[in-house]
Amino acid sequence: MNIILLSGGSGKRLWPLSNDIRSKQFIKIFKTENGYESMVQRMYGQLRRVDADCTVTIATSKSQISSIHNQLDENVGISVEPCRRDTFPAIALATAYLHDIQGVSKSEAVVVCPVDPYVKDDYFEALKTLGEQAKRGEANLILMGIEPGYPSEKYGYIIPETDEPVSKVSDFKEKPDLASAEKYISEGALWNGGVFAYKLKYVLDIAERIFGTSSYTQLYSRYDTLDKISFDYAVVEKEDMIQVIRFAGQWVDIGSWNTLTEAMSENIIGDAMMDEACENVHIINELDVPILAMGVKNVVISASPDGILVSDKDRSCYLKEYVEARDREAMFAEKSWGSFRVIDAEKDCLTIKVVIKPGDYMNYHSHDFRDEVWVVVSGRGKTIVDGMEQYISAGDVITMKAGCRHTVIAKTELKLVEVQIGKEITVHDKRKYAFSVEACR
Amino acid sequence: MNIILLSGGSGKRLWPLSNDIRSKQFIKIFKTENGYESMVQRMYGQLRRVDADCTVTIATSKSQISSIHNQLDENVGISVEPCRRDTFPAIALATAYLHDIQGVSKSEAVVVCPVDPYVKDDYFEALKTLGEQAKRGEANLILMGIEPGYPSEKYGYIIPETDEPVSKVSDFKEKPDLASAEKYISEGALWNGGVFAYKLKYVLDIAERIFGTSSYTQLYSRYDTLDKISFDYAVVEKEDMIQVIRFAGQWVDIGSWNTLTEAMSENIIGDAMMDEACENVHIINELDVPILAMGVKNVVISASPDGILVSDKDRSCYLKEYVEARDREAMFAEKSWGSFRVIDAEKDCLTIKVVIKPGDYMNYHSHDFRDEVWVVVSGRGKTIVDGMEQYISAGDVITMKAGCRHTVIAKTELKLVEVQIGKEITVHDKRKYAFSVEACR
Repeated sequence: MNIILLSGGSGKRLWPLSNDIRSKQFIKIFKTENGYESMVQRMYGQLRRVDADCTVTIATSKSQISSIHNQLDENVGISVEPCRRDTFPAIALATAYLHDIQGVSKSEAVVVCPVDPYVKDDYFEALKTLGEQAKRGEANLILMGIEPGYPSEKYGYIIPETDEPVSKVSDFKEKPDLASAEKYISEGALWNGGVFAYKLKYVLDIAERIFGTSSYTQLYSRYDTLDKISFDYAVVEKEDMIQVIRFAGQWVDIGSWNTLTEAMSENIIGDAMMDEACENVHIINELDVPILAMGVKNVVISASPDGILVSDKDRSCYLKEYVEARDREAMFAEKSWGSFRVIDAEKDCLTIKVVIKPGDYMNYHSHDFRDEVWVVVSGRGKTIVDGMEQYISAGDVITMKAGCRHTVIAKTELKLVEVQIGKEITVHDKRKYAFSVEACR
Repeated sequence: MNIILLSGGSGKRLWPLSNDIRSKQFIKIFKTENGYESMVQRMYGQLRRVDADCTVTIATSKSQISSIHNQLDENVGISVEPCRRDTFPAIALATAYLHDIQGVSKSEAVVVCPVDPYVKDDYFEALKTLGEQAKRGEANLILMGIEPGYPSEKYGYIIPETDEPVSKVSDFKEKPDLASAEKYISEGALWNGGVFAYKLKYVLDIAERIFGTSSYTQLYSRYDTLDKISFDYAVVEKEDMIQVIRFAGQWVDIGSWNTLTEAMSENIIGDAMMDEACENVHIINELDVPILAMGVKNVVISASPDGILVSDKDRSCYLKEYVEARDREAMFAEKSWGSFRVIDAEKDCLTIKVVIKPGDYMNYHSHDFRDEVWVVVSGRGKTIVDGMEQYISAGDVITMKAGCRHTVIAKTELKLVEVQIGKEITVHDKRKYAFSVEACR
């Protein structure tokens, strides 16, 4: 099977664990035998289990590359959107990537699905069936129709012509009100979970027609000039030959704390306690500070360096607007080389904790407007400051004045406390320089 | 008026804002014109307003001295218990302090009251009346009897002989069950708020009889050998001439989050937001991380570097046992010279933020088992390291190996990030040395 996983969005809906840098699909929240895994890890693992030879491409933005590399193995393809253009350019680019880079033939089928529903293995069996049906060529586009659990106002509906397992689609209905949703369901309508399959040639031909090219290199280099058009507008609305395949297995859209906590197998992740008077409470604590919950009911408590949320579970679906009201910079970020976390913020001074993975290193860089001090907390490695190399271990202190070039290379996992001092501390104050890490190891 | 304020207890009942180092009476929680004040500040201010010439002595333990000095003016006397011995030794010591140190005559009366009820100015008028009645000499001990608001099982009851404003006491009842409480109240019983007045001579004579001395110096130096006996056992149970004076004003015992939040004039202190679906919610946030509450009701949320509490208000009275279940070291402390807060904890490494008040300084000290690094975040001052003096300002770094003597003197308010590195980091690893700060300024 060939599959494109759509990994989008910044995800304010799961604040404070998701932020502008870390999207919800990368939060490690699902219990496994050896710890926790994220939505993206869970889905990738399930996919590999159902089809070990599956060609997986993740369509995503630049900001997620580090997280994907950190969380998945090297067999995953990544189609990076250089900027945001809407769904058709993104899907066309990923399809071209599959053809030009992964070498998948135009007559092969691909299944496109979002990375964030909470599903079981039968979902991936259904994806396979979707791909096989697309390959068969009875229709140009095959959709998955999810048997509705209840009349939801949150989803789009697919109206099939018949109640056969595979049916031609007669109509689509966008997010309806409750009464309409009930009516559609009584007439056999299915939820549209945004899952579909097609032959590569089909979408590449449309790309050729709209953009004048279906070459990955061309699409990528001209991406910021491509028309912002949706997949619905470019493809679905113009296509008569669409089929839908019914899916009756578990499918939970993890779009809010309410649905996410339903999918959690335990009530507490992190340092927390609750008393016996608590009912239906979930706590996810990424802070070093312990949480104690007493006598609260139907509540989710979630804490990270970005904030602390205490919300009635039903109310949590209104989270986005409140979080947007705060324009706070992300206090935690995962990087290709490790991670950092703000541990103290003062006027003209920021203190951060930096963890660098064994063998990894930062860019060689300088800042124009701030001095920095590193105190090595644990681990071993080497710093280069204005060309001077120095071996470092716990207790060592490195001072860097504004303008001085610096990097650090971790021999073992290296933890630093970094104190930044300056009138203007921003992520934009950074100049990068070329250097050969091989020559320095 | 002469008054002894009993400032005891570590106060796990208001965790995480109170801890082993900071008792609940020092939490700044009551809104004033220019910020917030603590219970102790509020009570001291009220006392001075009602009686500007009042002689105030606070009976307390060593660990509270810094907080008292930081929060109150220099006119307050402090009688420090060298160790814990129960209530009679503590009251005898404070009474001897009043006589020997403050120069109050033995024929004068003193009023003893706990530092933590939430009251209005009329309470202090009532204290004056209590003192005047003691001075009059009709009885040896004058108690305040609080008109009960409801049949509480939490308080002791005083049974007066008559319903006159001043009456002889006929009996005491310890914390009764609900039915008994109702019965006592119907018979005219009053709450015992632990407030009483006597002439100094009365208690000093009893001390002389029990301990063989009523001298402050003697009591202080022999304190750890004094019998552990309660004031009730030593005095109240043996005394026939006890009067009670009724008090009908506001009196709230701030012993739990439930009662404390009732006394707060606003719902949010610190960086927090709540949505319009929240009802009867109080948030006190001492962390830099914002709190968002959505759709919760009758809940108190309280956060400090020690922990995060989310509790149903009625449940919060059971807090103590849960907090005792955690034996976590205090992560924040107020010191005579400023304050410190743990901002990161690793195996073999602790990072703390230190704030030193202008003109103040640490002890000259060394550690046997850890190295330390100071990074100056803001302010100006001077360090002395193994006798070497150095002027410091933002961005300066001072490294101190284990064994090296060091201190820092703040010229302006000085903020440091201190990284401690060693196999065994404890508060006990500290040697102090004499030095003259005057010579070093």
